[in-house]
Formats: sequence, structure tokens, C-alpha cells
Amino acid sequence: MDKITMAHGSGGKITHSLIKDVFFKHLGNDILERAEDSAVIDAGTGNIAFTTDSFVVKPLFFPGGDIGKIAVCGTVNDLAVTGADPKFITCGFIIEEGFSCSDLEKIVKSMAKSAKEAGVKIVAGDTKVVGRNEADGMFINTSGIGVFGGKNRRLGSSDIKAGDKVIISGTLGDHGIAVLSKRQGLEFGSEIASDCAPLNGVIGELMEGFAGIKFMRDPTRGGLATTLNEITPDSGIGIMLEEKNIPVLDGVRGACELLGLDPLYVANEGKIIVITSPADEAGIIKVLRNSKYGKNAACIGEVSSDIPGKVCIRTRYGVTRIVDMLTAEQLPRIC
Amino acid sequence: MDKITMAHGSGGKITHSLIKDVFFKHLGNDILERAEDSAVIDAGTGNIAFTTDSFVVKPLFFPGGDIGKIAVCGTVNDLAVTGADPKFITCGFIIEEGFSCSDLEKIVKSMAKSAKEAGVKIVAGDTKVVGRNEADGMFINTSGIGVFGGKNRRLGSSDIKAGDKVIISGTLGDHGIAVLSKRQGLEFGSEIASDCAPLNGVIGELMEGFAGIKFMRDPTRGGLATTLNEITPDSGIGIMLEEKNIPVLDGVRGACELLGLDPLYVANEGKIIVITSPADEAGIIKVLRNSKYGKNAACIGEVSSDIPGKVCIRTRYGVTRIVDMLTAEQLPRIC
Repeated sequence: MDKITMAHGSGGKITHSLIKDVFFKHLGNDILERAEDSAVIDAGTGNIAFTTDSFVVKPLFFPGGDIGKIAVCGTVNDLAVTGADPKFITCGFIIEEGFSCSDLEKIVKSMAKSAKEAGVKIVAGDTKVVGRNEADGMFINTSGIGVFGGKNRRLGSSDIKAGDKVIISGTLGDHGIAVLSKRQGLEFGSEIASDCAPLNGVIGELMEGFAGIKFMRDPTRGGLATTLNEITPDSGIGIMLEEKNIPVLDGVRGACELLGLDPLYVANEGKIIVITSPADEAGIIKVLRNSKYGKNAACIGEVSSDIPGKVCIRTRYGVTRIVDMLTAEQLPRIC
Repeated sequence: MDKITMAHGSGGKITHSLIKDVFFKHLGNDILERAEDSAVIDAGTGNIAFTTDSFVVKPLFFPGGDIGKIAVCGTVNDLAVTGADPKFITCGFIIEEGFSCSDLEKIVKSMAKSAKEAGVKIVAGDTKVVGRNEADGMFINTSGIGVFGGKNRRLGSSDIKAGDKVIISGTLGDHGIAVLSKRQGLEFGSEIASDCAPLNGVIGELMEGFAGIKFMRDPTRGGLATTLNEITPDSGIGIMLEEKNIPVLDGVRGACELLGLDPLYVANEGKIIVITSPADEAGIIKVLRNSKYGKNAACIGEVSSDIPGKVCIRTRYGVTRIVDMLTAEQLPRIC
């Protein structure tokens, strides 16, 4: 490939090739190549988590959120799923000349609100302005630092084993469909809102209560399917999903059918996958269902040694099929 | 003002208003409002420095550097001038659909080379692709962490006092003129190269050798004049510059005269300002002049209590004038 395509930003197979063939090839080191949601680094006096994300969501305002909310929540969640306690965020704005100052202020207020809810401080920032038609409104980068200690122990995929349970904290695909419907001016009966939310509160509660938790991740770009496929490839284990247990809102399901999308691949911005030893399954689901953003939490599958390196799903019709990572782009500019 | 203008990204007065009226207003906290090049935060077990910068330089390749080199060096330098030892960098790419893969690889290789020279690890990254005409080629955000301890003590402007010396590590304006001449296809006799470089090596040497160092900063966007004006406004001190001592390459001076620019306001990407007690002046200049990027180091001024809150310059003709912060934009998309 000699030109960058939208697929390079999809989070799917082509993104992974780019990461391996260009970024790891030249920039690679032990920490980067772990390819976790946050890097865990030794900052001289102990480990901290460090992460970055750029946000290019289009449109900037959508049902349930805006680019400012997603920029703060996305980075908070990337830190929290590593097991860290998110503490500090930086933000870098790239703004197109002519952008509305009142929209900028709305976005900044939204960032402030999300930062307050998440309990993080925005400690540094940068603003660049580019000419008309040199950017599409506004892009935001947020980078973040989280700390370990106490209940905040470092999680990773290495402890996952056969028999562990796979839990999702709620319905899949809300964010992707909310953004898409706003962008395309589509209506699907009742308005679907993005699930965009800071999850460090409930994640902290789970870490406190359940030593059986092995792994967490937020299934954003590329959805549940892509995220689960990132865990399995080099391991001796696979994941078997149970379709009937996977929560999807009726409106999202209808929109996906209409548009030819699979909710397993649609982005979420306020959901976590938890992989846990079976003993803690019921307790975790109870805590999630009692929390603000986890009312539809469910156990959706199990880790299995029978399908090493694969993610499979048992459909409603009893058929088992492979859930592969997408090659290219399903929904561009979703986050 | 109801629309964002190029001036909001200039680094001058209008940028400072935006920061105060929008960002500090909604996101403000004790750390952010210090407005240093890096935030100094307590990461649970000790202080670290944390910074972010987005790079939108146009063109992406210019004499002496490219967007990858500037993205790494800029963040390394922002950490180092705080007194920290730069350790870890993240990078967030926003790429326009259709961007050349070989140019991407050139940029990534350049980042790797600069990271190696600076001794920093790139530990996390993110790639987003936007459609054609939704960005101008490529933008890069780098965020970074630096650590304190040993020679790496935290510097700040509060210890500066009358009689302290102001040193610059070399010629002013090289970066701005290099980028501008490439962008406009101008030629000024010999090609002027950007000074873009990682300065943490020589900064470390200075920190090790000279306890009299009070403050350092890299005069990037907005140049020397803007950076010095950021130090003085709320303090009881001012800075008196000596024009005849300020090093400027002949080619840069000629280009500035031709274009109506003042080298005091033109961006540098490989220079530091050092403010030190007078006893260390000669030693610092000697170390700088023996270093790779400091051959033209010079003492260019002195801190004075006679001009509180002001930056002034004694010109070659013996006249003294105020060097104010620019209101708006001199050179857009310079970094």
C-alpha cells in the first residue's frame, strides 16, 4: 500500500499492520510493543500508567455527548482499564480558523464537567490554529497519567485462563449508532444516545471488591469483536461468546440491520469488558447493575482452550462461527 | 470575538486571552494555571513533569528537520527546561486519507532518530485517519513525562532577581525562517536550516554544573520576545536586552528585513534561554559553546528592577524601547 486509507484508522487488521510495519519497526521497545491501552512505565519512584488518544469524531456534537466529553472519558477509561487510578490529563487542541468561539466554550465546559465527574485534573494544554479547510472543525488530543497502589493493581491479559468469564457492562453499539445517525441525519424511532461516560468510578469499586478480576478493556473503535481479538492471537486461549446473552438496544439492533452493520464491531465509549475467574462473576454483575452506567451488564461468554487464538460466537440458532477482526473500516471518524 | 482566528494560535496576546477566558475559566486548577512548559505533578510517589504539544508545521519537511523531529524535540525540550529528565513520550497521529506511506515512514524514522539522540522511549501511540481535505497532510501530538532527582531539580521563575543574567544558547529565528522560506519557495542566498534539536543533553550538563541557574525556557512559537514577556508580567522584575549581543545569522537577518519580521519574535526549536545568577554566567556560556547546539551562545541581557513587568531592549543606536508581546500572528503553522 502506498497511500494511507481510511482503513488505516479503523482499528482493524490494516491498522494493526501499520502499527507493526511502521511504528513498531522504527519506534519499537518493550513498553510500546505490549500494545496495551496505557503504557505502564517506571517514573523513577514507582509505576504509573501513561496513555494518549486523538479524537476526530464527526459531528462534534451528537446525542449523549460531544468531542470534549469523549476526549476526557476516552483517556480516563484507557487508564482505568489498566487498573490505574486516572489522575492527570493534558489536552491539545487543533482548531480550524473560523471555528465558533461559543462552540469551543461549550466543548471546554463539557470537558470540565467530565473531568470533574471522573476526578481528574487537566494540568497542561496546547492550542494550534490551522487555516480554513486545513482541518475539519476541531481535533482534540488527550493524554493521561494514572497511578497504582492500594486497590489499583496492574491488570494484564497474561493471567487469563480457560473457564474465566467474559462480562460486558452494558449494551453494545450505542455510541457508533448515535454518531452515525446524527452524521447522516438518520432517525431510528427513538433517538439513540452515545454511552460516552467515565468508568473509573465503577472500575475502582470492582477492583476493590473482586480479586478474581484478570483483565479489563473498553471496546471502543472496532467494537467488542476487535478488542477481544486483540487479546487472543498469541495466547493459547480463545473466547466463546453466547449471542443470546449479548445486550443490544432494540433501536441499535434495528439500525444495524438497516445499515448492514454488526453491533459486535460498532464502537462503544462507556462500556467495559471484564474477564474474571468464575467465582466473582455474579458479584461483579451485581455491582455493575447497581452502578450508573452498568444497568444492562451481563456475562456474555467464557474463555476456552478449545479454540486457541480465536473468538467465536454461538448464535441464537445454535451455530458457532468465528468472529474475526475486521480488515478495514466500518465507521470512520467515530471517536 | 465570535470566531477562532489564526491569531488565537499565535502564542501571542490573543492566545493568552483565549487561555485565560476559556481554558482557565472552565478547566482551571492550581497546576494548570501555573502555565509552565510542563506541569509538575505528584504521581503518587514523587513529582514528575508532564507536557503536551500538537504540531501542525507546514510544510512537513523543511531544511534541518520535519514534523517528526520537531514533535519529539519540542516535547523533550519542554520537559528539560522545567529541570526534569525527559524519559517517555506518546505520539498521536492524525493523518489525511491519501497521505504517502513512504512519507509517513520517513517521519516515523525521523522521530526514532530524535528519540534515540534524546534518550527517550516512545511508549504509546494512537493513529486516526480523516478524509481528504479534512486535515492538511498530517498533524502529530506528542506528550511526555520527565523525572526529577539528582541534578534534575525543579526550576521556576520565582527565584529570578535583579542582576541575574539572561543567556541565549545561539542564534535566533533560524527555525521560523527555514520553514517560511521552504513554504513560500523563497531563497536567501545560502539555505537557512531549522535549529530543531533535542537540548536535554546540554541542559543536563548545565544543571549538573551550575547551581546558580534559576530558570530555563525554549523560545518557540512567538520567539524570544513572547517567552520573556511570559516571565515578567506579574513579577516585580523586568528584563533589559542588549541588541548588539543578540546572535542572529546574517541570512536570517536579511530575510527578516526583506519580509518585515523581527527576529525577536521568530520561532526557534533548538534554543534555550537561561537565567542565572551572575557568578555562573561565564561558565554556562563556556559549556554551551562547547556543546553541539550552543556554539553561538551569548549573554544578551540582565534582569532589572527598574522596569518592573517589562521587557526592554537597548538598540544598537543606544535607544531603549519596550519589547511587547505580539497581539496577533506573525507566522502561522510554524510548529
